[in-house]
Amino acid sequence: MASSPMDAEFMPSPALFPWITLLTDFGLKDSYVGVMKGVIASVAPQARVIDICHEISPQDVQSASFQLGTAYSHFPPNTIHVVVIDPGVGGHRRAIALDFGVFKVVGPDNGVFSSLLQQSDPLKGVVLDNSTYWYQLNPSSTFHGRDIFAPAAAYLSQGLPMAQLGSVLELSTLNRLSTKPWENKESGGRGMIQSIDHFGNLITNIPASALVGARQSWSLEFHQTVVIGRSTYGEVALGQSLALVGSHGWLELAINGGNAQAYFNASLRDPVELKIV
Amino acid sequence: MASSPMDAEFMPSPALFPWITLLTDFGLKDSYVGVMKGVIASVAPQARVIDICHEISPQDVQSASFQLGTAYSHFPPNTIHVVVIDPGVGGHRRAIALDFGVFKVVGPDNGVFSSLLQQSDPLKGVVLDNSTYWYQLNPSSTFHGRDIFAPAAAYLSQGLPMAQLGSVLELSTLNRLSTKPWENKESGGRGMIQSIDHFGNLITNIPASALVGARQSWSLEFHQTVVIGRSTYGEVALGQSLALVGSHGWLELAINGGNAQAYFNASLRDPVELKIV
Amino acid sequence: MASSPMDAEFMPSPALFPWITLLTDFGLKDSYVGVMKGVIASVAPQARVIDICHEISPQDVQSASFQLGTAYSHFPPNTIHVVVIDPGVGGHRRAIALDFGVFKVVGPDNGVFSSLLQQSDPLKGVVLDNSTYWYQLNPSSTFHGRDIFAPAAAYLSQGLPMAQLGSVLELSTLNRLSTKPWENKESGGRGMIQSIDHFGNLITNIPASALVGARQSWSLEFHQTVVIGRSTYGEVALGQSLALVGSHGWLELAINGGNAQAYFNASLRDPVELKIV
Repeated sequence: MASSPMDAEFMPSPALFPWITLLTDFGLKDSYVGVMKGVIASVAPQARVIDICHEISPQDVQSASFQLGTAYSHFPPNTIHVVVIDPGVGGHRRAIALDFGVFKVVGPDNGVFSSLLQQSDPLKGVVLDNSTYWYQLNPSSTFHGRDIFAPAAAYLSQGLPMAQLGSVLELSTLNRLSTKPWENKESGGRGMIQSIDHFGNLITNIPASALVGARQSWSLEFHQTVVIGRSTYGEVALGQSLALVGSHGWLELAINGGNAQAYFNASLRDPVELKIV
Repeated sequence: MASSPMDAEFMPSPALFPWITLLTDFGLKDSYVGVMKGVIASVAPQARVIDICHEISPQDVQSASFQLGTAYSHFPPNTIHVVVIDPGVGGHRRAIALDFGVFKVVGPDNGVFSSLLQQSDPLKGVVLDNSTYWYQLNPSSTFHGRDIFAPAAAYLSQGLPMAQLGSVLELSTLNRLSTKPWENKESGGRGMIQSIDHFGNLITNIPASALVGARQSWSLEFHQTVVIGRSTYGEVALGQSLALVGSHGWLELAINGGNAQAYFNASLRDPVELKIV
Repeated sequence: MASSPMDAEFMPSPALFPWITLLTDFGLKDSYVGVMKGVIASVAPQARVIDICHEISPQDVQSASFQLGTAYSHFPPNTIHVVVIDPGVGGHRRAIALDFGVFKVVGPDNGVFSSLLQQSDPLKGVVLDNSTYWYQLNPSSTFHGRDIFAPAAAYLSQGLPMAQLGSVLELSTLNRLSTKPWENKESGGRGMIQSIDHFGNLITNIPASALVGARQSWSLEFHQTVVIGRSTYGEVALGQSLALVGSHGWLELAINGGNAQAYFNASLRDPVELKIV
């Protein structure tokens, strides 16, 4: 580590309980995630780190956006979320930090914050171009998680004003994924599978709000099958399909005691139709 | 988070070093485990969380019971073990907490605590039906890990009396898995493979205590093969099979430098016979 | 736990921020890693644990050596690195701890520290034969991670002098892997693939220092293909191969947005040739 870049005015405030989360596509077979934690610990020993997930498919920006968008609201105030799904590392994409008031994010400006930006507006942002706060003066061209993002989050966790990390970011220039939203239609809607979880549950991009006033009589049509909307797994027999409101707040398709991805031979982006009767 | 339900009498005692462990079938490709940690951090910032394992096969209550039963005794006093293998989530199964004196557990009443209950007797228990301590007043029907179990453990870690979490649980009504125990026979016994670990070691349900007085002359008969009992891997050549006392205290079958599951083409519940000479 | 073996002279110093890292081949489907953390927490509640990696292939001492060698320098001063890739557990291999001044390591003396020892010289070492500091007086023959290495690291993290953990280790007797180094040749060199990461990047054993003064005109010849050296992924089109200096400081082969292991059908130890023009 270079000598501390702390200037005289900056006093870390350890009483904040500064939480940092990590969301990457680094997997768990290498030391990459551990090394990011080592850098955070070197800069901000009092920071507490929580892994959101490191098994995002390599370079899958859309999945990272989904996971962050469904997870971020469940952490303590002042949490700093670090996202490193970064296919453009070392190139022209910007390394950024955004301040949403009650939480902050750090990562590449490549769309990983799209789902979050649909739910919440940042107050301000910076481009992480102040090399004083990089891990090393000449960062690697392949691992900005270690060299730029981890130290940025660590300094923020100590209370460093975000403006010190780099130039002002014009918020209107933020990159967002251009995903097709669900179509709200009379007595239903049309959407797609936006995520498939570890259990094989098929998470649509149709929000629970689409059901307002109709929870007992709705269904999802998927792969030529009509799947009835239920309240809990237990309302159908083991091995039977059901639709329900998932814990993320999206409608999902599941199999009681089974795997809906395998059952339906389903893929990401497969179309789904909501029918409300 | 709802506003804090803490009443005036309750003062958290942060000096306890309150440890919480997590054991789930959530896998590591989604944000579910991270979200549980976010909820714990929101309620009890001083709690320290240790992952026991999140790769239990989906809905495999028996494996969860085994892992908890072999792990729980290696944690500090006052640890709270949270187990979320919960195929009946949202249905009629009870969400419970049990107090064993030197440690506590939180999870569904579906048999995940069976192995533990064979080793230790709880002093008291509650059904987690006091919504004051839920994460949200209307919990999801699919993710009680986030909505009921994580906050229950977090409040317990702060010293909240367990009785405040809900109704008294009649301990005699606890669900236990009806697994067939090993049969102690003259000069040996008959059992089965109860777990297969990451290395392919085959862990039987015959305890080391079955060997009392005979450690140098015993064998396991498995898949028509007699495997001699040894003290260490190094007593056989690389690639050779051996039987030994595993670190859990159960007899196990292994290959020095290899994988016994592949070598024997073994499966869970395959029968095994102990012969003492 | 046995009663504390602390003697009167020893006072733990919790203000040290004592970090412990774990690097094992235990995988994440069993409770082994969690149990090691439980033992550490029992001995040294104030210790902070960071996972480097638990997905080393079973018994792959060379990979563990590589991961530790590329990761260790990114952690805070006084970190204790615990490595448990231990095919000889319970046999004649020695359990050791080494003091490098600014950090310490704990693990089996089987070559796992080879890469580290090429970069740094230990000041002193011990054989962990003082049973006072074992987890139990009769350690298992299969899980010294729990019974010997975790408690050794925990006591060291509290400031226990290393000499108390056992007999003096003669440093000249340390086991090192006899890996063939790269051959430095006029206008280039010859090496091999020493590691393949989660993304399929092929990490050679040729250091970036081999390029001194030639960064703009070099290539790696691999599997009958000449791959041009670049500075960043973005200098080639998606799906195209490139060579670059990896974040570890080794030359590596990659595919922009793809997987070089699959693209080249590459394996560990495949030969690679550096050409500098």
